Amino acid sequence: MALSERFVKVRSESQSLAAPLFVEDYVAQPVEFVSPPKWNLAHTTWFFEEFVLKAYKKDYKLFNKAYSFLFNSYYNHVGERVIRADRGSITRPGVEEIYQYRKYVDEQILLLIDSKPGTEVEDLIVLGINHEQQHQELFLTDLKYTMALNPIHPKVYSKAYVEIGEAGMDEFIDMNEGIYEIGFPGKGFSFDNERNRHKVYLHDYSISKNLLSNEEFIEFINDKGYENYDYWHSEGWQWLKNENKSAPLYWQKRSGKWYHYTLNGLKEVQPSKPITHVNYYEAFAYSQWKGLRLPTEFEWEAAADLFDWGSRWEWTESAYLPYPGFKKAEGAVGEYNGKFMVNQKVLRGASVATIEGHSRKTYRNFFHPHLGWQFTGIRLAK
Amino acid sequence: MALSERFVKVRSESQSLAAPLFVEDYVAQPVEFVSPPKWNLAHTTWFFEEFVLKAYKKDYKLFNKAYSFLFNSYYNHVGERVIRADRGSITRPGVEEIYQYRKYVDEQILLLIDSKPGTEVEDLIVLGINHEQQHQELFLTDLKYTMALNPIHPKVYSKAYVEIGEAGMDEFIDMNEGIYEIGFPGKGFSFDNERNRHKVYLHDYSISKNLLSNEEFIEFINDKGYENYDYWHSEGWQWLKNENKSAPLYWQKRSGKWYHYTLNGLKEVQPSKPITHVNYYEAFAYSQWKGLRLPTEFEWEAAADLFDWGSRWEWTESAYLPYPGFKKAEGAVGEYNGKFMVNQKVLRGASVATIEGHSRKTYRNFFHPHLGWQFTGIRLAK
Amino acid sequence: MALSERFVKVRSESQSLAAPLFVEDYVAQPVEFVSPPKWNLAHTTWFFEEFVLKAYKKDYKLFNKAYSFLFNSYYNHVGERVIRADRGSITRPGVEEIYQYRKYVDEQILLLIDSKPGTEVEDLIVLGINHEQQHQELFLTDLKYTMALNPIHPKVYSKAYVEIGEAGMDEFIDMNEGIYEIGFPGKGFSFDNERNRHKVYLHDYSISKNLLSNEEFIEFINDKGYENYDYWHSEGWQWLKNENKSAPLYWQKRSGKWYHYTLNGLKEVQPSKPITHVNYYEAFAYSQWKGLRLPTEFEWEAAADLFDWGSRWEWTESAYLPYPGFKKAEGAVGEYNGKFMVNQKVLRGASVATIEGHSRKTYRNFFHPHLGWQFTGIRLAK
Amino acid sequence: MALSERFVKVRSESQSLAAPLFVEDYVAQPVEFVSPPKWNLAHTTWFFEEFVLKAYKKDYKLFNKAYSFLFNSYYNHVGERVIRADRGSITRPGVEEIYQYRKYVDEQILLLIDSKPGTEVEDLIVLGINHEQQHQELFLTDLKYTMALNPIHPKVYSKAYVEIGEAGMDEFIDMNEGIYEIGFPGKGFSFDNERNRHKVYLHDYSISKNLLSNEEFIEFINDKGYENYDYWHSEGWQWLKNENKSAPLYWQKRSGKWYHYTLNGLKEVQPSKPITHVNYYEAFAYSQWKGLRLPTEFEWEAAADLFDWGSRWEWTESAYLPYPGFKKAEGAVGEYNGKFMVNQKVLRGASVATIEGHSRKTYRNFFHPHLGWQFTGIRLAK
Repeated sequence: MALSERFVKVRSESQSLAAPLFVEDYVAQPVEFVSPPKWNLAHTTWFFEEFVLKAYKKDYKLFNKAYSFLFNSYYNHVGERVIRADRGSITRPGVEEIYQYRKYVDEQILLLIDSKPGTEVEDLIVLGINHEQQHQELFLTDLKYTMALNPIHPKVYSKAYVEIGEAGMDEFIDMNEGIYEIGFPGKGFSFDNERNRHKVYLHDYSISKNLLSNEEFIEFINDKGYENYDYWHSEGWQWLKNENKSAPLYWQKRSGKWYHYTLNGLKEVQPSKPITHVNYYEAFAYSQWKGLRLPTEFEWEAAADLFDWGSRWEWTESAYLPYPGFKKAEGAVGEYNGKFMVNQKVLRGASVATIEGHSRKTYRNFFHPHLGWQFTGIRLAK
Repeated sequence: MALSERFVKVRSESQSLAAPLFVEDYVAQPVEFVSPPKWNLAHTTWFFEEFVLKAYKKDYKLFNKAYSFLFNSYYNHVGERVIRADRGSITRPGVEEIYQYRKYVDEQILLLIDSKPGTEVEDLIVLGINHEQQHQELFLTDLKYTMALNPIHPKVYSKAYVEIGEAGMDEFIDMNEGIYEIGFPGKGFSFDNERNRHKVYLHDYSISKNLLSNEEFIEFINDKGYENYDYWHSEGWQWLKNENKSAPLYWQKRSGKWYHYTLNGLKEVQPSKPITHVNYYEAFAYSQWKGLRLPTEFEWEAAADLFDWGSRWEWTESAYLPYPGFKKAEGAVGEYNGKFMVNQKVLRGASVATIEGHSRKTYRNFFHPHLGWQFTGIRLAK
Repeated sequence: MALSERFVKVRSESQSLAAPLFVEDYVAQPVEFVSPPKWNLAHTTWFFEEFVLKAYKKDYKLFNKAYSFLFNSYYNHVGERVIRADRGSITRPGVEEIYQYRKYVDEQILLLIDSKPGTEVEDLIVLGINHEQQHQELFLTDLKYTMALNPIHPKVYSKAYVEIGEAGMDEFIDMNEGIYEIGFPGKGFSFDNERNRHKVYLHDYSISKNLLSNEEFIEFINDKGYENYDYWHSEGWQWLKNENKSAPLYWQKRSGKWYHYTLNGLKEVQPSKPITHVNYYEAFAYSQWKGLRLPTEFEWEAAADLFDWGSRWEWTESAYLPYPGFKKAEGAVGEYNGKFMVNQKVLRGASVATIEGHSRKTYRNFFHPHLGWQFTGIRLAK
Repeated sequence: MALSERFVKVRSESQSLAAPLFVEDYVAQPVEFVSPPKWNLAHTTWFFEEFVLKAYKKDYKLFNKAYSFLFNSYYNHVGERVIRADRGSITRPGVEEIYQYRKYVDEQILLLIDSKPGTEVEDLIVLGINHEQQHQELFLTDLKYTMALNPIHPKVYSKAYVEIGEAGMDEFIDMNEGIYEIGFPGKGFSFDNERNRHKVYLHDYSISKNLLSNEEFIEFINDKGYENYDYWHSEGWQWLKNENKSAPLYWQKRSGKWYHYTLNGLKEVQPSKPITHVNYYEAFAYSQWKGLRLPTEFEWEAAADLFDWGSRWEWTESAYLPYPGFKKAEGAVGEYNGKFMVNQKVLRGASVATIEGHSRKTYRNFFHPHLGWQFTGIRLAK
């Protein structure tokens, strides 16, 4: 697909996601790590303006100079910004103006692409496209977090975004000891954190063919898994106690049955579907209870051609660390990944909320172990 | 004015205040003590539904039964409610539905009034009207707090809501020692906290004829008033250090000049106008620096016929405590005032944001000493 | 009693209180508002050194110049100090050195007294004596707080310090409406917060002849007083929920019986003795449940000759505020009381831990409403 | 060395460390992660009592049954315990009684050893010895943390415990790509986290022969390394801002020169000695500034025979994770290491505070990235 075509497609996908929203929905930010939909739509646009148009489009006129301050996420190189927790307080500019901003930047980027600006610029536009695809997923998971707080359980989409794929850990794939090549092999787009491709030595292991199902996880709950410190990390146990947890995020029991909030409203939990919205602590505790373990990200990648994946982000045992030879880029773009490589766990795969064309088996997603608001899942190893 | 007329007038005033808002503005709640405009409009309506229609209108059909949970503020008697800090996360029902809710409840109340329901019900409707007037003021002060966080300084109204009345402490009124009658004398509406009318013994004192001006307060700033612990309460000094304060809320210095955010955008501070958005700690510290003191609420009330008031809520030295013979009402309405009678200071007067017809000299407003987001002011005594 | 005699007596009483302590006991500071015994003994000594010897004793040589920093409590005028929460981390100088410090300062003060230094100095020494008496009480209450955390319930003294006086609210004293004189009449020592003596108008009221008993308070507990928001201030209810309270401080139930930690170890609660270690929120909630109220500090003082008091600090409804004509002293001594006159409630009377000779009916003690670690009690009014 | 001899030696070393302390020093706990000396001496004793004597010594009589509650650290299997933050509030039992406890348990263990109890018990005693050696190091680092808060800079030992070994990164050792064996080879004592020995594939790398020196780190400070976000992780930068850091822990500048608190009092920083008390964020930031990186724990271990180590715990880039085949032991002993394998970084080597005979090159120490109170150091790789 031509670059301009891809650009138009991805940009328009963001707006399709937003189509069913009320204007009111665009604003709310219930917790610091969740961004308002309006901010998401503006920030992805700002990324193109800041890193592409301002730097490479001749005589480019900013849409509005306040936007650099308003819609920067975490790029210190770019200067000051609204503090993250205040994103939900910025009610103006309104939604309509953000759509005008998107239109303006879209036109300017398309003109720039037409002018054949060379590989460096085109690579940045591809980065911007991938960045926007990441935010499309965040758009959905953040929206779900907000809507789940609403006691009237709004139905935002006709699709629940969860009940995909069969699950159940009955089959394991055996993998042989040896040296494996890990990391992006080098054609097409990848993030800097997937490189360099390098060798890793793995010992014999087996990995589950399928994801863990809701009913398998319910067994853990019923066996008092949330009440036995023995299965938990010390910090996981502390999290559970502080937050008073006894089931995954968004779950509630009504007359003896488990329900969970979905973007299509409150639904009964389907036993045979893959569990989701567990955090790392919960995934680990389950594995301990079962006498198994989570795979490392290397074990996952080495076996990824032998099982289906893509409906859940799968927690791995690996910490998010640089690959051998990792170098962060100069300037603001270098802030994309490198500065987050501490205290987080790697997730592999992709999810129901990942936009088509944005996944690959070397992709490294990462979140803090206590967070479960992404569409996360569990695959086990032994 | 007939009750139905008063009701229609006040209800319509709330909507006039909201008229210039963007839909996006209705949702934001930057801090726990600030409520979103949408919530304000719904909560005042809920008050009529919950305390009047549900109890006294035959066969009354609730507009939506979820609303009792969504729009209850702090009435434990009424049952569970959305936790206060989450009000800004409730994006649905949308603004339009809230206006339908208002319309529906308005019609029902007017039908009830037409049916001549008797004094008890009429008194509750009058309480609801006064309650809504209080929320009209909060509507403005909460909105200001939110908008002030926006770096683009939105102009919400054509009116700045601050530059009213001349100020300057050049004249003092002398008052004689003796017994004074304090509290609501007993005709027309008053809140329970203004009763009973009772005797208070006051010693000789003098009270300023005018409010303190911006330029008088700027002298205090220039004399390093915010850097000298000697003028401050121990807890005031702690507040100042924690919050890193060196000027009143909403003030900022640009090229040597003081500006402040107003509902009509960022404006230069007018020297001769009354200071506003100071909290009790700041008011007290100023008084210490000046070698004077704040009046008690009794001193204020005893002298209130001898000076102009009404453009600012004036901090007094008095703590918010029950008057002799105070009795809280039975049931939920009893939660209106009584349970807040600790740790707060009394403010007297009224402000530019107080709706016409809602003020009287026995009115007791109250806030925590660290809060300055109301239109507060300073009058001194000696 | 001659000044030197009083001085020696009070200084030696402090050391008697400390006599049964282990060296280890002198150090611990479990929470910020509790000071270690060693700090208490040093700080009261520092008070004499800083305010008397340094200022008025010719050629006075400091015992150790680091002590000014180490043992200042909250006097900004005197300069920097160890932050309050770190007092328990200062293990050196050791206890023995502190006793040498006391000895050194005692000798110097006695020499100064012998030299007939005049009223100003003598008044400061009297202030220092009263200051030390206040710290003698804090010595006991702070020690109790620390020891109560120890699961082995140490017996520190042969005396439990609680079971004093009979209690029970069966009799009320009627008081007539009228003008009363309140405040210290002006002979002998008083704190600045007891002055000026002034007139207060009181309405008819009745006040309980005795303090509330343990069994009366247990009725409130048994009637689910800690589970019904209706009796509590909004902030009291929040305190109770946050702290998960269902009985007074130091109480625990074992096989259906109430026990409480005392300085003589864990003891069964005596039904007919006065309740203690309730905070203001609890005292207020009890009064609401009973359909009565707490007296104001003025009502208390006006009636104080008609009942026995002195075994408990009695919560009043009054906020801690300056009396008419209150002026804080110049310099550091002015920090003694004035800067605390916000957010606190007045307690009247004295307690089992108050040192003999330190109480009078105009004495105003003050604490935050959530604190119950002093020997507090309840007297009701109507 | 015979087991009984080793036991006696290690137990007596603990007491030698405590010999110069004041009784007062045994009690203080300034922050949650620092334990009082008295607690350390009792807890290591409790370990022998709980895991060895109670389980394996016939008719063993507990020294005091309250001690199980008082001196358990984090073993949920063993039951309830004093909450960690309250260790500093437990002033009784006193120091003398703790020494009696040590004596009693020592005698009992020696009797048990004499009775030839078999490998399982002997292994537990060896674990207890190693456990005590770990606490000997914590004894020193915790004591240093407490003493450093004291403005009089106590000299606790005649030895400063820091100025050991020359430092400076002028030479690098080149290591070849290939498969390396990592982990404890299987003879003698090791912790469970050092096993299983397994293969790791390493790419070409170089590692510094010496540790980083103070003067090298000062260059980083002088080049505004603490003011440039570009060198820091996002969470490191947040830590630095929250804590207001501009130099390593215990450092202070006086008239242009750097000093640091040591257990022998305040000393000038020696330029050529190895830097210490940096946390992981600081170590990483330095490496970024220098254009280098930290080694992984595998790179460190593979090269450890080629350089001197042992004066500092060296931060590695590796997260603390289980080795392939790691299995935690059944019961309470299983809580020793496994439950901490998240959110921590591995440190390799040993330090000036590590007791002789307690170090080996496969040893894995681990701390949270923000903590620098251990004797930590920096070795770089490229």
